Amino acid sequence: MPEDDINLRGGRIVRSEEPLNLEMPFETAESFITPTNSFYVRTHFPIPKIDRDAWWLHVEGEVEKSFAINYEELVGLESITIPVTLECAGNNRNFLEPKVKGVQWGLGAVGTAEWTGVPLSVLLDRAVVRSNACEVILEGADHGMLDDPKSPPGELTFSRSVPLEKAKRDVLLAYRMNGKDLPPEHGFPVRAIVPGWYAMASIKWLQRIIVSSEPFTGYYQTLDYAYWKRRGDIAELSPIAELQVKAEIAWPAQGETVPANSSVRIRGAAWAAGNEIVGVEVSTDGGSTWKEATLLGEMKPHAWRFWEFDWKTPSAPGKRTLVARATDSLGQTQPVHRDPDRGTYMINHLLPITVEVR
Amino acid sequence: MPEDDINLRGGRIVRSEEPLNLEMPFETAESFITPTNSFYVRTHFPIPKIDRDAWWLHVEGEVEKSFAINYEELVGLESITIPVTLECAGNNRNFLEPKVKGVQWGLGAVGTAEWTGVPLSVLLDRAVVRSNACEVILEGADHGMLDDPKSPPGELTFSRSVPLEKAKRDVLLAYRMNGKDLPPEHGFPVRAIVPGWYAMASIKWLQRIIVSSEPFTGYYQTLDYAYWKRRGDIAELSPIAELQVKAEIAWPAQGETVPANSSVRIRGAAWAAGNEIVGVEVSTDGGSTWKEATLLGEMKPHAWRFWEFDWKTPSAPGKRTLVARATDSLGQTQPVHRDPDRGTYMINHLLPITVEVR
Repeated sequence: MPEDDINLRGGRIVRSEEPLNLEMPFETAESFITPTNSFYVRTHFPIPKIDRDAWWLHVEGEVEKSFAINYEELVGLESITIPVTLECAGNNRNFLEPKVKGVQWGLGAVGTAEWTGVPLSVLLDRAVVRSNACEVILEGADHGMLDDPKSPPGELTFSRSVPLEKAKRDVLLAYRMNGKDLPPEHGFPVRAIVPGWYAMASIKWLQRIIVSSEPFTGYYQTLDYAYWKRRGDIAELSPIAELQVKAEIAWPAQGETVPANSSVRIRGAAWAAGNEIVGVEVSTDGGSTWKEATLLGEMKPHAWRFWEFDWKTPSAPGKRTLVARATDSLGQTQPVHRDPDRGTYMINHLLPITVEVR
Repeated sequence: MPEDDINLRGGRIVRSEEPLNLEMPFETAESFITPTNSFYVRTHFPIPKIDRDAWWLHVEGEVEKSFAINYEELVGLESITIPVTLECAGNNRNFLEPKVKGVQWGLGAVGTAEWTGVPLSVLLDRAVVRSNACEVILEGADHGMLDDPKSPPGELTFSRSVPLEKAKRDVLLAYRMNGKDLPPEHGFPVRAIVPGWYAMASIKWLQRIIVSSEPFTGYYQTLDYAYWKRRGDIAELSPIAELQVKAEIAWPAQGETVPANSSVRIRGAAWAAGNEIVGVEVSTDGGSTWKEATLLGEMKPHAWRFWEFDWKTPSAPGKRTLVARATDSLGQTQPVHRDPDRGTYMINHLLPITVEVR
């Protein structure tokens, strides 16, 4: 699917201006850590302008001691730095046929950064979570009105919840991205990082943490960022959560021309929800036959892994369809066809990359 | 709001043909029990054609002993007969400004019938509910495809859940309406009656009862028949449940002419979610001043109560706006203005009836 007249901004594809949605051209994914100025940007509302010195993060709800913490105190706490891959739940949406509503992401609404911050568990421990708590709601400062007649009346603030156990174990309150302060578009001054989950849960411009004794049913986990999960034959609306296992081909890019009768290095990345990627296979004949690719570097939890495969291109010119598929340590692999219960999200079926051998 | 060219069928207003939605002209509400052939009809899909002798009701899920029961056995169990008022969650929708989507019900998507059937608790006891159960899902035989791009792919079957405690205490599996077999449009051969709740929960053409250990999040209690409940300032999507306290004026009807300088009997009905109606007030000046109406008959739980008020009409001709408001035994009364968090449902703010004094 070559796209004409791609609108680029600093090397990123502008998918929309208001709200700002920028995609990394996935063929530029060459390093384990995505440079900050190449990282995709997903926003739902205007980017909040936050004065770091006036910022407070409130911790409340089902806790013994509600409190608020400011930036200076937060960065004074012991921090950790971890690489985490973030992927938009709608990544690859422009592969769907027929076309659906939503930002038309290609392959590049995904990236990996090193995030520095304080584990959420530190603040939860300070607040003393009550025994009836089951979830933690993360609220950003981004807000606005929606067009959706089914949305709540008035202004909506972006918020999402995480199960308490996950919140305690994995969630980071990050204030640095790749060693520098978060840029405004990535959640300055502080954002959540929810490793292994689609990035809608990694709330930017974090302003409030609400411990809750009931499953949260806000707009962004019911009417949006939700899918149909089957209980027997009955569909139930469920919030999107864990990343689905996926490999993407970075090179050759969609529509590229490659030389006949030569060796072409196919390369890309693969990731899963915190499970190790144990293999990536590549097909150069549209999925009829598969060969093992080579995994590069070392496995890091919650981060993608690069891979490559040397393709002996055919001597006959013509179109060829490349496909990659990943398998994780739980034996999960990618479906051949789209599951319609997933609506416009969680797209991890096999994605064809068509190239011209010449 | 007088309506031109009202399409009537057997005295009922045809709100839509496919699916069939019929409304009782509320000015005909004169008896505590609504005659079956005047009772409003709400359907979402074509009316299922069910052979009573081949019908089975399945009881399954979080129970020790799943089983199925046929019609003959069900009607052989001890039955009870109770009057219950059913009201569509979208009743009065045509009073909303600006106009919203959905069936444009006036005042008459409400009625009271005597329902004969077997308490659901009898079947739940037979199945032996497990201790982890919290809800009971009721599934009808009505099904079809929806236009909504957010609905689950494929055919959808109408289903709704009730908390286990409510299911045990109140829910009836009814096979008679006003002393006769249920008509096809009211759920033949067996329907649920959920007293005190909006009628979307009173599943018709009942075919399956699923005991569940988790809150059910099917289409008809998330994307439809839901509203925004506030937790502090955050809106959460919540399934519609209990009836809201309401009084409706049956006579004079909207747009009627009444004689000046005489006595006109204003009459209507009032209901609440199982709480006693303790008072109905009437205003003949658009809500500026209020007078007590007289409650008629006796209080019956889960059923409406008729009321009347003798109005000395003014000597000066002109338009007058009549309003009624009910209060229940919990002190709950009707709001003056529409709560936008309720979307297109649960409409119980004060409804003006405009008449011409001449």
